[in-house]
Amino acid sequence: MNPLATTPTPPYYAVIFTSTRTSGDDGYGEMAERMVELAAQQPGFLGVESARSPGEYAAGITVSYWSDLASIRAWKANLDHREAQARGRDRWYASYRVRVALVEREYGLDETAGMS
Amino acid sequence: MNPLATTPTPPYYAVIFTSTRTSGDDGYGEMAERMVELAAQQPGFLGVESARSPGEYAAGITVSYWSDLASIRAWKANLDHREAQARGRDRWYASYRVRVALVEREYGLDETAGMS
Repeated sequence: MNPLATTPTPPYYAVIFTSTRTSGDDGYGEMAERMVELAAQQPGFLGVESARSPGEYAAGITVSYWSDLASIRAWKANLDHREAQARGRDRWYASYRVRVALVEREYGLDETAGMS
Repeated sequence: MNPLATTPTPPYYAVIFTSTRTSGDDGYGEMAERMVELAAQQPGFLGVESARSPGEYAAGITVSYWSDLASIRAWKANLDHREAQARGRDRWYASYRVRVALVEREYGLDETAGMS
């Protein structure tokens, strides 16, 4: 599976979730997989990219892409997701930040375009 | 060092750089460190967060935060950075995507706010 998301021509939204974990798994890995599967079934979901550096207190970053703010709000309010969010706050994350951002421009390895 | 960036109240910009690496280091680690140090000296730089999952073809994500588009353009045109970009295309990256996004909202572990 390609770990990079294939997204449509901007504009669309990104939710940038950056975190540091507490030590131990404690159900985290299973939940993380389940949430990605569940997110992918939501209306407006466009893709997701995720990376976590090894080691305690290293950063993890998950960026999910969405067609609009309403889809992001609906996913945030999803009951299973709310339960995962609560456990995340209580157990799994030492710290996190969530940033909601409007993607205005996108380019890749094969395109010379960009913003020059 | 806290791997999560402390950024001002939105709006500000995020550059989401997601990539998969070719195998071997080939000068990559040293360049990556040097580029983070150099980026941090640029006008408009607000912070950076970075994670790379272990294993070949796993994703790496670096999100840098900037006060405005002009700062992002200037950093993209920086000569040392352009050299690193060229080597990245030729050697270090199997694939990458760059997304420039306007951060509209931010919240964290200690805030209940968000967008509900």
